Amino acid sequence: MEKKIGFIGLGTMGAPMARNIMDAGYEVHVYNRTPEKAKPFVEDDVPVHDSPAEVAIHSDVMFIMVTEPEALNEVLTRENGVLQGLQEETVVTNMSTVSHEATMDVAESVESAGGRFLDAPVSGTKKPAEDGALVILTGGDESLVEEVTPVLQTMGKEIIYCGETGQATNMKLMINLLLGSMMEGLSEALVFGKKLGLSPEKMLQTIEAGGLHAPFFSAKTNAIRSGNFSKNFPVNLMLKDLNLVMDSGGNNGITLPQTTVTREMFNAANIAGSGDEDMAAVIQVLEGLTDTEVRG
Amino acid sequence: MEKKIGFIGLGTMGAPMARNIMDAGYEVHVYNRTPEKAKPFVEDDVPVHDSPAEVAIHSDVMFIMVTEPEALNEVLTRENGVLQGLQEETVVTNMSTVSHEATMDVAESVESAGGRFLDAPVSGTKKPAEDGALVILTGGDESLVEEVTPVLQTMGKEIIYCGETGQATNMKLMINLLLGSMMEGLSEALVFGKKLGLSPEKMLQTIEAGGLHAPFFSAKTNAIRSGNFSKNFPVNLMLKDLNLVMDSGGNNGITLPQTTVTREMFNAANIAGSGDEDMAAVIQVLEGLTDTEVRG
Amino acid sequence: MEKKIGFIGLGTMGAPMARNIMDAGYEVHVYNRTPEKAKPFVEDDVPVHDSPAEVAIHSDVMFIMVTEPEALNEVLTRENGVLQGLQEETVVTNMSTVSHEATMDVAESVESAGGRFLDAPVSGTKKPAEDGALVILTGGDESLVEEVTPVLQTMGKEIIYCGETGQATNMKLMINLLLGSMMEGLSEALVFGKKLGLSPEKMLQTIEAGGLHAPFFSAKTNAIRSGNFSKNFPVNLMLKDLNLVMDSGGNNGITLPQTTVTREMFNAANIAGSGDEDMAAVIQVLEGLTDTEVRG
Amino acid sequence: MEKKIGFIGLGTMGAPMARNIMDAGYEVHVYNRTPEKAKPFVEDDVPVHDSPAEVAIHSDVMFIMVTEPEALNEVLTRENGVLQGLQEETVVTNMSTVSHEATMDVAESVESAGGRFLDAPVSGTKKPAEDGALVILTGGDESLVEEVTPVLQTMGKEIIYCGETGQATNMKLMINLLLGSMMEGLSEALVFGKKLGLSPEKMLQTIEAGGLHAPFFSAKTNAIRSGNFSKNFPVNLMLKDLNLVMDSGGNNGITLPQTTVTREMFNAANIAGSGDEDMAAVIQVLEGLTDTEVRG
Repeated sequence: MEKKIGFIGLGTMGAPMARNIMDAGYEVHVYNRTPEKAKPFVEDDVPVHDSPAEVAIHSDVMFIMVTEPEALNEVLTRENGVLQGLQEETVVTNMSTVSHEATMDVAESVESAGGRFLDAPVSGTKKPAEDGALVILTGGDESLVEEVTPVLQTMGKEIIYCGETGQATNMKLMINLLLGSMMEGLSEALVFGKKLGLSPEKMLQTIEAGGLHAPFFSAKTNAIRSGNFSKNFPVNLMLKDLNLVMDSGGNNGITLPQTTVTREMFNAANIAGSGDEDMAAVIQVLEGLTDTEVRG
Repeated sequence: MEKKIGFIGLGTMGAPMARNIMDAGYEVHVYNRTPEKAKPFVEDDVPVHDSPAEVAIHSDVMFIMVTEPEALNEVLTRENGVLQGLQEETVVTNMSTVSHEATMDVAESVESAGGRFLDAPVSGTKKPAEDGALVILTGGDESLVEEVTPVLQTMGKEIIYCGETGQATNMKLMINLLLGSMMEGLSEALVFGKKLGLSPEKMLQTIEAGGLHAPFFSAKTNAIRSGNFSKNFPVNLMLKDLNLVMDSGGNNGITLPQTTVTREMFNAANIAGSGDEDMAAVIQVLEGLTDTEVRG
Repeated sequence: MEKKIGFIGLGTMGAPMARNIMDAGYEVHVYNRTPEKAKPFVEDDVPVHDSPAEVAIHSDVMFIMVTEPEALNEVLTRENGVLQGLQEETVVTNMSTVSHEATMDVAESVESAGGRFLDAPVSGTKKPAEDGALVILTGGDESLVEEVTPVLQTMGKEIIYCGETGQATNMKLMINLLLGSMMEGLSEALVFGKKLGLSPEKMLQTIEAGGLHAPFFSAKTNAIRSGNFSKNFPVNLMLKDLNLVMDSGGNNGITLPQTTVTREMFNAANIAGSGDEDMAAVIQVLEGLTDTEVRG
Repeated sequence: MEKKIGFIGLGTMGAPMARNIMDAGYEVHVYNRTPEKAKPFVEDDVPVHDSPAEVAIHSDVMFIMVTEPEALNEVLTRENGVLQGLQEETVVTNMSTVSHEATMDVAESVESAGGRFLDAPVSGTKKPAEDGALVILTGGDESLVEEVTPVLQTMGKEIIYCGETGQATNMKLMINLLLGSMMEGLSEALVFGKKLGLSPEKMLQTIEAGGLHAPFFSAKTNAIRSGNFSKNFPVNLMLKDLNLVMDSGGNNGITLPQTTVTREMFNAANIAGSGDEDMAAVIQVLEGLTDTEVRG
């Protein structure tokens, strides 16, 4: 018999991820803190529950996709939270990006309550979430990963096993360190060139022509050229993740001179009011400090 | 009648570039400061001359590919330098990466001596140079670029017109700013992950799976994994270019907080004795500061 | 009748501070987690208690001087902690450097238990602690500060009222931000000069001759010259405080580009094994990155 | 017989320095590029000459105090420059802050022309220049320093011998590295505290109370509090000197992570239009990035 799925967190990422599981034929039970975001699911006759506990009661495998460590903890431990409805052997899969410490804490809570925990953050933003083309990082018992893989495959095009519980979280932070570095590096390159008279179009063409080129650069350069900072992955989440990276670096004896400066730039973007804009808005800090504008 | 070509500077990049022009059927005259590097050309009956002036005497279009601003200036202005042999209307194409200021100075010298100048630095390293697959940036008179394009096409797969004289140089510096940023960003990501227990192999797999992936990351991660820092683009040239970037930023009112820290990391790598190693050796600075090793 | 004093935390700072209160004639009750450090007090017939609660039972005004936020929390809330022995109206004065958040939490705990809380971190190290010449920063109710001032004056030469509860903690973090900046700035200056052939002695003479001179520079330059990194204020506490500063900056929208790099240097020093050495040991990171030695 | 003195460069620093030499009874001949600044000297019947060469003709010991390396070079080598009027054995003392390289070049020019060169930059700004209380750093032949010392003592309260020619310049750059670090460190501390609700007045009081205190901090904090950025030592000169420091670091294998970020902050201040304001104006960059204002 097919596994029953629980999905908690129907935001920009979570909603299309849940849809992809449903489209593969699974019975999916959902919950979202703000009921509005669950409405489209109600309209499609998906069972939308009033609490995480109720979702847990109906699930063999649960997925949680929320944006803040506090939200993750609340979803689990609050009154009528996941832990209160957890069935013996139910798998709780955390796909949110949180600290290594938070991952380990959640794993312990779930296992103490008789469930099984899977560490499975995702790499990718809105578009790949919609296309079922996320990269899913997994950490934990390998046989558990195997068991859940068919469901993960409805959401992701690639599933990478990273090691024991917590290692998927570490991998996610590593990727987001690189993401922040590249966003700031691209911004400095574009501001540098624009101030010297180069067109953003020509700069993108040059980047795209060589070995430095990543699809990310095209997407972000085009967003910047058009001045479109509608959020895909917002400044405040990038800042949150870079804070997790720096904390992890500090706790584990890792020196990160470039990242620490990159983090301050996202901090400055957030202070300037761009927290809810796309991470590409970090370029505006440099534009301010250089008295130039890349747009156009 | 086919144009006669002069090529000065037969190093890691220059030698295969000159070969590609020859292979396309052009008559090529060459010169190199240290005669040893010209030997393979002698053996192939290519006219190897004793001075830049003699090359100039035999050329319609000249290409210069040297690694230092001082070398460029010397090749032009020394006794028996290019300027002394320069024919009316001969095109002098500088493909070396130098400062904007140096480009403008050279342009003036060449034009004062009756020649025509083309600003044409290249993006790409040894392998694309061998494959005739460089990205060639051009700056100057558009009709001049058009005239030289057939020869440029023997060396490059893509020729990007950047604007007036000096703008190709600016574009090259912009690209190398990004190159330095990505090398340091990758290094910080790999050191971060390795210290937390992730394998370099898995990290590369994860990077390759998503939108951040650039071919550069695969090449450099593999070099680091195997501890192979044999030079492709060495630390001391990366440092030289980042110094040009920072000087240009300083002279033109551009603030570059991330780049300035990246530059210090290449400076530290150079001080540590890795100047002649590949730029990937910059990771060793972080390894020292973090007490970990990514290799293996 | 004279107030009875409780003192918890008899480390490098706490022991001489408690002595100074005693020398002023107060009855002082003490406690230290590791009993060994309390031994000299036993020998002098000072009442050394087995738990913070017992100290609390005998005190009108308590002082806590510990080095870690966790230690502060433990001293208060553990079994037989301060809160269990707290008398109505007893004043609990925290002199340890902790985060603003920790200060506010402790204040709430103490007040909920019927006590009164005073935020009073100190600026200064071992020597001024011994001389009763600390700078004591105070935050909280002004009449409470006035009430405790006679006791504070036995430990400090200057008492600065900073505002409501939490503001003294903020002031302390501000001072330690400056402390870290100056230590790293001095280190960069000394390494720069030494590598260029200047003697540390002449450099100190030059610094001392002008408006930049702070007594701190003389003390640290002399320590570095002699290679004496015996701890006064160790690298790991400086790092702890800079982490508090950066967290506070992150939580309150403050951009600190220089401080974030300074923090990474202390992080690197800690990783290199200098955590328990004096903060001046941070210069060794630069010496390694520059291949020079200031000593001698 | 008393030595005759030549003084070139009558700016903010130079004018009072020349006055102090005159007040000690020396015959002083002066020159300034823009004649206006020499007017007060004309009115006092001081011999104001039309060219550096004429000053040289009348001098036994010359002092040059200009703000830019280009100006120094011009004053010496232009038509009717110092070199053209230089008498055998005349001492040319450079008190301007220039690069080590520029110092060595000037020394060679002077000596080739039959003069003697003294490297003697000063530490201190307008006020100590007026009070004859500068710190004068000397580099070169010790007997030459001794010979000129009586004149130097009219301008400075302390004369520090740093070593051979070029070492006084290195010492000056070391001091200005520290100056820049402290200005940015103070700015970050003040912005940090103000954003958290501390008053600048209380912060200054706290700084002044402890071992970190330097007279510089009082002066700059008071300037910032009152919003008075009238120049004493302007942002663009601080930036110029930090550029010399970074170049010197780059050329000599010195890694300066904090200084490189400090330099970018002065660069940003300069871009923002504060180049001619006092160096304390660098705080405005942080105020912008933090959305707060320390003033008041």
